[in-house]
Amino acid sequence: MNIYEIINKAQTKTKLSKNEIFWLVDKFTKDEIPDYQMSTWLATVFLNHLSVEETNWLTQALSESGEQLTWSKPTVDKHSTGGVGDKTSLIIAPLIASLGYKVPMMAGRGLGHTGGTIDKLESIQFQTDVNVKNFKNLVETTGMCIMGQSEDFCPADKRLYALRDATHTVANIPLICSSIMSKKIAEGLTGLVLDVKFGTGAFMSKFDDAKSLAQKLISIGENSKIKTYGVLSSMSQPLGRYIGNKLEILECLEIMKNPEEAFELYEDNILLSLLLSALMLQSLNPKESLEKNFQIVFDQLMSGKVFDKFVQMVQAQNGNLGELLTSKSSQLNINPKIDAKKITITAENDGHMNYVDVKSLGFAAVALGAGRLTKEDQIDFEVGFYCHKKQSDRVKKAESLFDVYYNDETKLSEALEKLNASFEINKDGSLNSSQKLIQEIISFDGQNYNNLHLKTKFFEI
Amino acid sequence: MNIYEIINKAQTKTKLSKNEIFWLVDKFTKDEIPDYQMSTWLATVFLNHLSVEETNWLTQALSESGEQLTWSKPTVDKHSTGGVGDKTSLIIAPLIASLGYKVPMMAGRGLGHTGGTIDKLESIQFQTDVNVKNFKNLVETTGMCIMGQSEDFCPADKRLYALRDATHTVANIPLICSSIMSKKIAEGLTGLVLDVKFGTGAFMSKFDDAKSLAQKLISIGENSKIKTYGVLSSMSQPLGRYIGNKLEILECLEIMKNPEEAFELYEDNILLSLLLSALMLQSLNPKESLEKNFQIVFDQLMSGKVFDKFVQMVQAQNGNLGELLTSKSSQLNINPKIDAKKITITAENDGHMNYVDVKSLGFAAVALGAGRLTKEDQIDFEVGFYCHKKQSDRVKKAESLFDVYYNDETKLSEALEKLNASFEINKDGSLNSSQKLIQEIISFDGQNYNNLHLKTKFFEI
Repeated sequence: MNIYEIINKAQTKTKLSKNEIFWLVDKFTKDEIPDYQMSTWLATVFLNHLSVEETNWLTQALSESGEQLTWSKPTVDKHSTGGVGDKTSLIIAPLIASLGYKVPMMAGRGLGHTGGTIDKLESIQFQTDVNVKNFKNLVETTGMCIMGQSEDFCPADKRLYALRDATHTVANIPLICSSIMSKKIAEGLTGLVLDVKFGTGAFMSKFDDAKSLAQKLISIGENSKIKTYGVLSSMSQPLGRYIGNKLEILECLEIMKNPEEAFELYEDNILLSLLLSALMLQSLNPKESLEKNFQIVFDQLMSGKVFDKFVQMVQAQNGNLGELLTSKSSQLNINPKIDAKKITITAENDGHMNYVDVKSLGFAAVALGAGRLTKEDQIDFEVGFYCHKKQSDRVKKAESLFDVYYNDETKLSEALEKLNASFEINKDGSLNSSQKLIQEIISFDGQNYNNLHLKTKFFEI
Repeated sequence: MNIYEIINKAQTKTKLSKNEIFWLVDKFTKDEIPDYQMSTWLATVFLNHLSVEETNWLTQALSESGEQLTWSKPTVDKHSTGGVGDKTSLIIAPLIASLGYKVPMMAGRGLGHTGGTIDKLESIQFQTDVNVKNFKNLVETTGMCIMGQSEDFCPADKRLYALRDATHTVANIPLICSSIMSKKIAEGLTGLVLDVKFGTGAFMSKFDDAKSLAQKLISIGENSKIKTYGVLSSMSQPLGRYIGNKLEILECLEIMKNPEEAFELYEDNILLSLLLSALMLQSLNPKESLEKNFQIVFDQLMSGKVFDKFVQMVQAQNGNLGELLTSKSSQLNINPKIDAKKITITAENDGHMNYVDVKSLGFAAVALGAGRLTKEDQIDFEVGFYCHKKQSDRVKKAESLFDVYYNDETKLSEALEKLNASFEINKDGSLNSSQKLIQEIISFDGQNYNNLHLKTKFFEI
C-alpha cells in the first residue's frame, strides 16, 4: 500500500478498500503521510466523491483514531448542521436527561455565521474542557455532560478538518458526513437525531441538498448501529428571538423556567426543541408512537424539571448563571442583565417583516463580536440581537425591529450594515413564501411522518 | 487575490486570470503558499484541466520565474518526450552547430524507464553543471552547449514538478506542456522541434494522445513566438541498438565517425536524427523546403564535420572520450571499451523478433543500474544492452539476441526477468504490426508533410 496508488485510485474513481482507507488515516495521523499528499487526496475526492462504502469506512477510521466510549445504559444525542439563533441543545440536553436518559454531548464552537453551543455555555463560565473520565462520570451520574471537542476523540478528524479548512475542501458531502458522524460514533450512542437545516441562514440553502445530506448522515449512523432520525428544519428566519451567546442562554432559561409564558415569544424554538427531543426518545424506543413521545417531552418541559436539570448541569460544570436567573427578556419589559450598550432599530415605514438573508444576520452578530472570523478572534459574550419581529409579522412605522447589544462603536457600524442587508420591510405584501419550520422527518426505515399530528394545550401542528 | 478563491475557481472550472496565475506561481516560489495548498490546486486542475489560455499563462509564469536568455543570432533546440535508446540529441546538437547555428540545449536526466542526455554525457565525465554565463559563452563561441537543469532557469517549474512527482499529479497534459515549454521558452529560442513518442516504450502509448500532446506543445511554443514543429515517432522498439549511458555515446560516435558504415546497423536512429535536424533548419527558415533541408543535414553528417563538432563540444565541456574513440561496436566484431561484464542472450527457437513491451526493456536497463528508481540512486554508466535484432527481424535458434553489460549479479537476474518480458520470438509470424518510425510531422500552420519524399544515396522514404 502506498499513497501514490491511493491518490491514483481516487483520480480514476477506483474504490479504495477498507484496509486502504484505514491505512491512509493511520499514516496521516502518525505524520507518515505529509499534508501535501493528504491534501492531494482530499482535493481529488472533493471532485470525484467518495462512494457510500468508502464514506462509511472513512467515518469508522476517523472515529477509531481516538477514544471510543461505551455506556452502561442507552445514550442519545442531537446534532444540528448550524443556524442563526439555533440554541435547541441547551433545552434538549437537560430535557432528555431529566427523563432519566443519558446524553453524552460533544458540541462545537461557532463556525462562520452560526453560533456554537460551547461558546454559548462559556458565556456563563461553564467548563466545557472536560476530560474523558469526568465526561463519562458526569453522564453516568447526572445524566448529561456537554463538552467541547477534545484531542482524545477523533484526533484524525481534527487534523483532517484543519487541512480541509486550509485547502478549501470543506464543502463536500461525503467528507462533511464522515467528519460529523465520526464524532457521534465515538460517543458510543444508541440513538441520534440530526437537525439538518436549509434556507438562507443554513450552510445548505436548498431543501433538496439538505435532504440528501440528511439521508447520507442517517445511513452512516445506521451503518454503525445507531438509530438515527433526521429533521429538515427551515432556517429562513432566525430561530427564536435572541442571537448572541449569553442572550441565547437567557432565552433558553426563560423557556425552561416559564414555558407557558415564553411560548408566545419563542414558539419556533420550543416546537423544534420538543420535536427533536421526541425523536430522541423515539430513537431509543422506535416502536413507541412519535405523538406519545411528543406528549412526554411537552409535559416534561411544562413540569419545570428541565430547568432544574439545566441548573444542575451548570453547577456540575462550574458554570455561573448569576443574574441571568432573575433577568427577563426585554419583550417582557424587563431588560436582561447584559453588560453591553443597547440601541434599538425601528421601522422606517409600515409593512411586513421579511427576512431575505439570514446568513447576513448571522454575520452581523459575528461583526458585533459574537462569533469569530479567524480562530484567534476573542468572542464578546454579551453582544447580539433581539428580534422583535418574526417572518411576515405586521410592522408599523417607528416600531421596534431589533435591539442591538454592542460594546464597540466601530464594530456596530459594520454590524448594522449586515443587519440591514438581512431583512426588508415589505410594503406591497409580496413576501417570501414563509417556509414551514419542520419540512420533513426522515428515518432509515422510510417511515412516513408527513401526517404527524401534534396537539398540546398550547398548539396543534 | 487569495489561494482559497483560486482553488475554488479550479474546483468550479472557472478560468483564472493571467494575474491570478502569475500571483500563484510567485507566491508559491516565495514560500508564501504552502505545499499543501499548492498540491490542492494541482490535484484539482489535474482532474478539471487548465484551459489553453491558463496553460499559456502558467508556462509564461514558470518561464519568467528565473533567468531568460537572449541571443545575438537565431537559436534552435530539440526536445524529446523520452524513449528507450533515444539518443538523437547527441547527434543533432553537433550537427546543427556544425552548420553555423546556435544550439542552447538544456537537457534532463533519466526518468523512469527512459534515459536522459545529461546522464549519458556524464558517462564520459562531460561537465553538464554549467553556469549561465559559461552556457551563453559556449553557445555564442562554439555554437552549442548542453547543460543540465539549473536552479537559475525556471526555479518555479522545478519546485512545482517536485511537488507533482510527490503527489501523483504528473500525468496531466496541460501541466506537462507548461513544464516542458517553460524551460524551452527560457532558452530564448527562435525555433524548436519536438520529438513526441508513442508506443509501448513511450510515456504515452497511444498515437492519438501523443498527437494531442504535440499539438498543445506546438501551440504554446508558437504563442511565445517560437517556430515549433512536432514529429510523432514510434517507440514500439528501442531506437538504434544500444541502451545504456556510455553505450549510447558509443553508438552516436560510430554514426558520426562512420555514418556510411553505421547506416545498416543504426538506420532508425540516423533517420530520426536527420529528420529532426532538418526540421530544426526548417524552424529557422520556414520557407525552405523540408527536402532541401534534409539533404543539407544528410550531407553534413556524411562530411565528418558533425563528429568534429561533437569532439569540440566534449573538449569544451571537459569530457573525456578516451578509449571510446577507438572502440567499435560488437556487431563489427570488436568489443566496445566498456568496463563491465558481458553475457549474450540467444534465441531458444526460430522465429521473428517481436518487441511487446519496450517499457519493460527500459526498466531492465534501470534494473542493471543504467537509470534511477529514486533520486538518490547512483547510475552505473557502463551497463546496458546491445540489441542484435530489430522488430520483425528473422531469428534462428541459438542466434544472439541481446548482449547484456552488467556489473552486479543480483541486478542482472532482475534485469533479465524484465528483458524477457519485453520481447518474444514469434513462431507463427503473427507479429505486432511494425509501426512506421515517423508517423506524422505536425506544424502550427497545418502544412501537410504526409507525402514527404526523402531520398539520399542510402535510402528513400
